[in-house]
Amino acid sequence: LSAIHQQVRRTIRRHALVPTGARVLAAVSGGSDSVALAWVLRELSDSGDLDLAGLAHLNHQLRPAADRDEQFCRDLAKRLGVPIDVGTRDVKGFAAAERLSLEDAARRARYAWLEETADRRGAAWIAVGHTQDDQAETFLFKLVRGAGATGLGGIYPSRGRIVRPLLDLTRADLRGFLAERGECWVEDETNADLRNPRNLLRHVILPGLEEALGLPARRAMARAAGLMAEDARWLDELAARRFDEVAFATGPGLELDADALRGDPLPVARRVVLKALRCQSPGREIGLDHVQAAMDVLSGAATAAEVPGSRVELRGGKLVLVQQKVASASTT
Amino acid sequence: LSAIHQQVRRTIRRHALVPTGARVLAAVSGGSDSVALAWVLRELSDSGDLDLAGLAHLNHQLRPAADRDEQFCRDLAKRLGVPIDVGTRDVKGFAAAERLSLEDAARRARYAWLEETADRRGAAWIAVGHTQDDQAETFLFKLVRGAGATGLGGIYPSRGRIVRPLLDLTRADLRGFLAERGECWVEDETNADLRNPRNLLRHVILPGLEEALGLPARRAMARAAGLMAEDARWLDELAARRFDEVAFATGPGLELDADALRGDPLPVARRVVLKALRCQSPGREIGLDHVQAAMDVLSGAATAAEVPGSRVELRGGKLVLVQQKVASASTT
Repeated sequence: LSAIHQQVRRTIRRHALVPTGARVLAAVSGGSDSVALAWVLRELSDSGDLDLAGLAHLNHQLRPAADRDEQFCRDLAKRLGVPIDVGTRDVKGFAAAERLSLEDAARRARYAWLEETADRRGAAWIAVGHTQDDQAETFLFKLVRGAGATGLGGIYPSRGRIVRPLLDLTRADLRGFLAERGECWVEDETNADLRNPRNLLRHVILPGLEEALGLPARRAMARAAGLMAEDARWLDELAARRFDEVAFATGPGLELDADALRGDPLPVARRVVLKALRCQSPGREIGLDHVQAAMDVLSGAATAAEVPGSRVELRGGKLVLVQQKVASASTT
Repeated sequence: LSAIHQQVRRTIRRHALVPTGARVLAAVSGGSDSVALAWVLRELSDSGDLDLAGLAHLNHQLRPAADRDEQFCRDLAKRLGVPIDVGTRDVKGFAAAERLSLEDAARRARYAWLEETADRRGAAWIAVGHTQDDQAETFLFKLVRGAGATGLGGIYPSRGRIVRPLLDLTRADLRGFLAERGECWVEDETNADLRNPRNLLRHVILPGLEEALGLPARRAMARAAGLMAEDARWLDELAARRFDEVAFATGPGLELDADALRGDPLPVARRVVLKALRCQSPGREIGLDHVQAAMDVLSGAATAAEVPGSRVELRGGKLVLVQQKVASASTT
């Protein structure tokens, strides 16, 4: 097995992504990452590590090259000797109907369709092609935008039945692997549009950072992001359990046991407060500032705080979230 | 009080940095951050928030302008009407004797001298002038260098008796504050040397990132770094307690209870393993790779791992760190 296969095998074992011999569906877009994913999984299927159920490609009908990409994936499946499922979804219509961004709508439609397809193919697991580059880009992007009220998340090796066996490899590793075998892939022309801040990060800022510092910054960032995601996931679980112990619904509002929270470690208390603010204002963006403002009320550094959808006050040993009347989402 | 004072007061309360009325020594270099610190603390001393014991300036005798900076700080203390302690240390000699980098030697000499000075002045607390900019720069610098085997640390609002009340303000905020009052400061000429990767980050990469994305990236990064430092600090404490339960010294080596560790949440288990590797090889750099290699042995993804100073194996329910003979530090 090649070095790439060995790394993928290590990633699968390290995070217990797929039990030996389990049936896996590979999601493919036609880009280099997912094409490499398909090849690696086909060979790990031959060696008995897992059982590749086939490929799955969703045509989002968004880009001019969408049909070319679909045809490329059909040909890829033929060369690999595995079945392929191709679906189409009207992402534009879905986005308009659900008031979602195109990107968000495409992602939701894709994952929903992948789940259905995996069920149909009898695959317990769905592999997607995220790499170290995606991890580093996502992390830096969230970081500079101030997103993430309790940490930065990052891309998890697994989430439900979705698994990401390429998360310890770079895009360059995978393109090298494909080039060595004379395999090709398609380029998503929208990735080159530098008006998109994410593409700017990918093609200009991150390579510039590495060149200026002479360091493999993406690899280092991806690793750190992976570890911080692991930390955050466990802290989020702890906080979810703690929330059930200290939060009480009070008709229109929510109360938290302030004394209990003050005794909790800050990483847990902060996440409990975030969860409470989110419960009060579903669908609204709760940011770091809002959590900090509520924590200031808890610590006595402030007497009250206004956050989206609620007013936060301290009343007789309780941190009280008083629901505020807000204009409905459709009129704002 | 100005907006700057109010923010400093909020930071002090938020992190319980200094009890009301407590005696604080302000460390000053003569740069804009510490000069602003001295002014803000003088006024918070007048308003009774705390009791400014005076300024403290260490002349490291490293830069041509060191004596100019010392004189500037003496004049500053006169204008503020507070006492100043000035010390000198032969940092070059100390670095050579202890085989430290100049930067590391300067930092150690400075903190040691600050502690002595604070004792002499009867100050329980020592305030230093780190800002949001320092937080963002340190975080990004550690991030791209792959440092931090269990997270990225970041700059803590307090560490022992050292407190950092400016950590929620930017350098630009502080320079604006000084300029408004017609106050000046000295520039450290070595900060302009772009051959230093840290200065490159500060003066080129971070401003470039903000301009390209049109976002206040430093502020966002500093906030996220502060929260992650809070998470990491608590997880480190948990792991230190857990280490005492699961680690056993075995003459030349160290054993960890593998079954217990496997049942622990990953963020804790990973930190326990890091602590064990560090115990085995004091003074040697233990990186992410080494921790991951040992974790792979624990999970069964690998049978053994070589890390600096030890070999890691699984033997009868124990993760065993076998000390390896190594060349002494002076010959490598």
